[in-house]
Amino acid sequence: MANVVFQFENGEKVTVSTMAGENLLETARKSNVVIDAPCSGNGSCGKCRVKLLGGELDSKKTRHINEEEWEEGWRLACCSTVAGDVQVMVPDIASAYRSRMKVADLSSPQEIKIFDDCMEHLAEADLTLGNNIRIIDLKMDVPTLDDTMPDNERLTRALQAATGIKKIELPFSVLMELPNVLRASDFEVQCVIAQNQKHVFVYDVFEKTANVVAAGLAIDIGTTTVSAVAVDMLTGKILAKASSGNGQIRYGADVINRIIESQKPGGHKKLQDAIIDETLNPMIQQMSRAAGISSRQIYRLSVGGNSTMNHLLVGINADPLRMEPYIPAFYKTNSIYASDIRLNVHPDAHVIIAPNIGSYVGGDITAGALVSMIWNQPHFSLFIDLGTNGELVFGNSDFMMSCACSAGPAFEGGDISCGMRATDGAIEACTIDKETMEPTFDIIGDPGQKPIGLCGSGIIDVIAELFRCGIISPKGKFIREGKRIKHDHYGMGSYVLAFEEEAAGSKDVEITEVDIDNFIRAKGAIFSAIRTMLKSLDFDISMIEEVYVAGGIGSGINMQNAVNIGMFPDIPIEYYHYIGNSSLCGAYAMLLSTKAEKKVYELAQNMTYLELSTEPGYMDEFVACCFLPHTDSSLFPTVMGQL
Amino acid sequence: MANVVFQFENGEKVTVSTMAGENLLETARKSNVVIDAPCSGNGSCGKCRVKLLGGELDSKKTRHINEEEWEEGWRLACCSTVAGDVQVMVPDIASAYRSRMKVADLSSPQEIKIFDDCMEHLAEADLTLGNNIRIIDLKMDVPTLDDTMPDNERLTRALQAATGIKKIELPFSVLMELPNVLRASDFEVQCVIAQNQKHVFVYDVFEKTANVVAAGLAIDIGTTTVSAVAVDMLTGKILAKASSGNGQIRYGADVINRIIESQKPGGHKKLQDAIIDETLNPMIQQMSRAAGISSRQIYRLSVGGNSTMNHLLVGINADPLRMEPYIPAFYKTNSIYASDIRLNVHPDAHVIIAPNIGSYVGGDITAGALVSMIWNQPHFSLFIDLGTNGELVFGNSDFMMSCACSAGPAFEGGDISCGMRATDGAIEACTIDKETMEPTFDIIGDPGQKPIGLCGSGIIDVIAELFRCGIISPKGKFIREGKRIKHDHYGMGSYVLAFEEEAAGSKDVEITEVDIDNFIRAKGAIFSAIRTMLKSLDFDISMIEEVYVAGGIGSGINMQNAVNIGMFPDIPIEYYHYIGNSSLCGAYAMLLSTKAEKKVYELAQNMTYLELSTEPGYMDEFVACCFLPHTDSSLFPTVMGQL
Repeated sequence: MANVVFQFENGEKVTVSTMAGENLLETARKSNVVIDAPCSGNGSCGKCRVKLLGGELDSKKTRHINEEEWEEGWRLACCSTVAGDVQVMVPDIASAYRSRMKVADLSSPQEIKIFDDCMEHLAEADLTLGNNIRIIDLKMDVPTLDDTMPDNERLTRALQAATGIKKIELPFSVLMELPNVLRASDFEVQCVIAQNQKHVFVYDVFEKTANVVAAGLAIDIGTTTVSAVAVDMLTGKILAKASSGNGQIRYGADVINRIIESQKPGGHKKLQDAIIDETLNPMIQQMSRAAGISSRQIYRLSVGGNSTMNHLLVGINADPLRMEPYIPAFYKTNSIYASDIRLNVHPDAHVIIAPNIGSYVGGDITAGALVSMIWNQPHFSLFIDLGTNGELVFGNSDFMMSCACSAGPAFEGGDISCGMRATDGAIEACTIDKETMEPTFDIIGDPGQKPIGLCGSGIIDVIAELFRCGIISPKGKFIREGKRIKHDHYGMGSYVLAFEEEAAGSKDVEITEVDIDNFIRAKGAIFSAIRTMLKSLDFDISMIEEVYVAGGIGSGINMQNAVNIGMFPDIPIEYYHYIGNSSLCGAYAMLLSTKAEKKVYELAQNMTYLELSTEPGYMDEFVACCFLPHTDSSLFPTVMGQL
Repeated sequence: MANVVFQFENGEKVTVSTMAGENLLETARKSNVVIDAPCSGNGSCGKCRVKLLGGELDSKKTRHINEEEWEEGWRLACCSTVAGDVQVMVPDIASAYRSRMKVADLSSPQEIKIFDDCMEHLAEADLTLGNNIRIIDLKMDVPTLDDTMPDNERLTRALQAATGIKKIELPFSVLMELPNVLRASDFEVQCVIAQNQKHVFVYDVFEKTANVVAAGLAIDIGTTTVSAVAVDMLTGKILAKASSGNGQIRYGADVINRIIESQKPGGHKKLQDAIIDETLNPMIQQMSRAAGISSRQIYRLSVGGNSTMNHLLVGINADPLRMEPYIPAFYKTNSIYASDIRLNVHPDAHVIIAPNIGSYVGGDITAGALVSMIWNQPHFSLFIDLGTNGELVFGNSDFMMSCACSAGPAFEGGDISCGMRATDGAIEACTIDKETMEPTFDIIGDPGQKPIGLCGSGIIDVIAELFRCGIISPKGKFIREGKRIKHDHYGMGSYVLAFEEEAAGSKDVEITEVDIDNFIRAKGAIFSAIRTMLKSLDFDISMIEEVYVAGGIGSGINMQNAVNIGMFPDIPIEYYHYIGNSSLCGAYAMLLSTKAEKKVYELAQNMTYLELSTEPGYMDEFVACCFLPHTDSSLFPTVMGQL
């Protein structure tokens, strides 16, 4: 046996016993210690760095750790085995994947406006707010020796009279409490029900004096980030919101690694536990507290997530998703309830899952497509969701086509040495002085917040500015020298945005050639996907009249810079709109509006799916895109004209 | 702290730690040690005897323990507190309430005949066997790159084609396993479904080679005894049967004591655990094993139980049942599933509960009334269920009236010093030689089985014979002397059926004046209920053309003797029929036949209920009945003529 001490930068420690010879990353996972491992531990990403503080570790040298770092004690956890008692430091600042949860009882006015605007647009398309959840007040006769009707029949009859509906379903959980509630409240109660055309389902019966709220929860389950809003099902009012890292992150950064991990013994349970017990249930608890309700008063949930997230959420074998012929267990399912997957809300709460279209176009896109409104316009629009996968939908009121490309986690700050999510400390916008090469940036957070890293929009700006200033070449290599340009032992260049002393962490905030290369491949994946999809339709970029950009990249995204680096097509900048987290917004619409929910199913059914990997020319297109802005500069006339 | 050792006659021991000063019966209950306590520990029944083997016990003297017994170490557990480390012996032989479970994979031919006859009679009334459970074989197309329909849709379409029904409900549990089962079985499977007119519910999907049985379980939950049969839902074949003491017995012998016990903190859970975890789940496990199936293959249950048993089974507050105005939580409910009450069968198995009519006429009687067939005959019949409560139904095809009387547990051997259920070792029939006063008896069990005690039918015989032989007076007092007649210190007489050396246990098998008195009150309750009910209708005993006797009293019941002691009316003996456990038989019919299930609901709705306690003259009638055969001997002309 060996004792392993994981020490965090905030001073906390976790001590575990393991066998000598055990892989350090595995040891961490088993102990619920989160160490970034986007590649799921195969040594390729170099993210799972730990610093050896003492004791014995058998580590392999790797290209991700240079000599100086090795001397300082840096090791990759996935390439290390425990050799005896050992103490390691686990970095947590500047982590792209920190699981820190953000909860607020009310959204900022801008955020609320996104939801309000969404419902307004939908209402214009006749998808008005309105669902079947009701709170009904009932006053019954108090039983006597001459009126010995049993409790369940008494309530049923009162509900029949109040709703005009004959079929009343009282589940066991209500029946169980009925004698007590009726008698505690003199047979005058409030019922939370779902009232359908021919059927009423009773969720709860409360005493007449109880403060009854019927809440719902809209959730966006991203591969990297999970966001949710708790709403009042009757008014649509937002009661609380929260976001958190997806707890599955330690099982890999992308869906393929997660699926592979889920296939190991006990894997499905591990991955389901990570999203439910470690991510959603804590969020639900915090949001309920912030909203001043019991989590049992959440009577419905709706989820926007990609196909893999949906499968792993419900604990269903996801392996067929990644294996030819790529068959999901479900595109659409109506039969999942909160208690089935141990969500700590009302056990009979229905879990609405936005429908998947294919293995790689999921509910996040169908829910997002609803919100983009492209299905309600005669002209052609493009919807782009920049997540760990990039997904596109193109079309108009007559047709819609979707496709997906693997962009990697770069847009959410992954695969970038100083990358992070768009939270406090993230550089979200940047300009660089062409002469002095000095940066000016906006940092998320309170005034005086020092930079921790770069979020997606910040990376776009930095690369665009480095390119504009001639600091990097079209291939992303450093071609100027200066105070902020560094080169390591291997000659790899980097640009320092903030030196250690200016930064919040203990090292420089910088962007390296490897980061730039990773990001160029991510933006190349997006642009080549757009081109390939349009080509398959015999369409041209000039046909696009609106572009709706969604995703965790952050509202600070500078569309012109995204065009300048060749990520988005060179069309008039006023065509671009950032629509925020459209998956969450779509889930919110589905939750509150039965009409919107039906519309999403309809959209999913009518949307065609283009499999890029089998599409001729896609790979050539991708290779041509791995350049700033593009190998074929004629595709970016405006951009080139400005340089 | 004090250590309490409970030692059983079979040599087993249970050792528990408790606080000095703790009541011994309570200590036993907390440790799941079953000590008979029909009065639930208030010192009135004298059943909770234990023998002090060593150590310290603070015990009160009571009339139930005589000097000699006290010297031998006998104490009442409910009147004893733990004073230090202590060892007590808990008797288990001759206990009326032993929880010993009897399981068999097949019923005896006579028993099977009862069920067969039942279904035959019901079929004559057009209530044929037939329910909505089906096993369906499906062969689907194996998916390809050109046929990427998701698994749930593929199965749904195949089921739609096979059943012609559009609405297919795949619950989470099926969805969850679907990708695996389909792929393990080349998309050729067997489905267990419930097929309704417009709706199919899928319970399970099995590989094509699996041995699939769709089983159901009919259960009679008596206050004292629980019986069940596992059946094949498709053929009606009995797969296994079992009976067991009701684990709630340690919380009181009758429903009132059980309800009182349930009102204590944690009481509902304790009583529910006793019936589910301690009684039903072990029976289910054993029966499944005997039938060679998995308990998950039990897809439906039906329960015949009295109103209190039904409430305690589902864990619902039963207190309103015993408090004016006597309101049950439900008469009928359709919303209880196995998982709601932790029954270890298929989680989605529907639990059909035969409807209650009132607080004291429950599902055992509505299910039993179905089986009695009195609702299908023009002439008047009487249905008598001899349980811990006695319940009566009188009527014909035009009307039915029901009532209940508290007979106590005497018919099942309770409240009788050597009483026991009708299992191995029970004297079930007896004659006594008028000259020699020597008894001859039949004992349940293998040849050579020595007597342990007396079951209900045996008690009837013994009392009838003692009366016929002039050994006891019409008031039940001993008026002859002889070898087998004993008198104790207080002068209380008893008749020894088997001396210690002839018996299986360590003491005489006898019947005492107290036993006889208890039994006379039990039989008096029945006869006075019959008289009062008929009087309320302005009917006379002579109107009865058939009497159906049901209950755990045993098939050995001698109807003539029951008439002779004034338990049943003095009408031609050929009018009497013993129909066995009609509650179980009715549950069996409801389980297998949807038509029979509907009929029970219809019967319950149309049956009126007579509350005896508020009926004028009932108490006078009862007092007049506490006599052999009756104070008004003109009511028993035939009997009196023979004496």
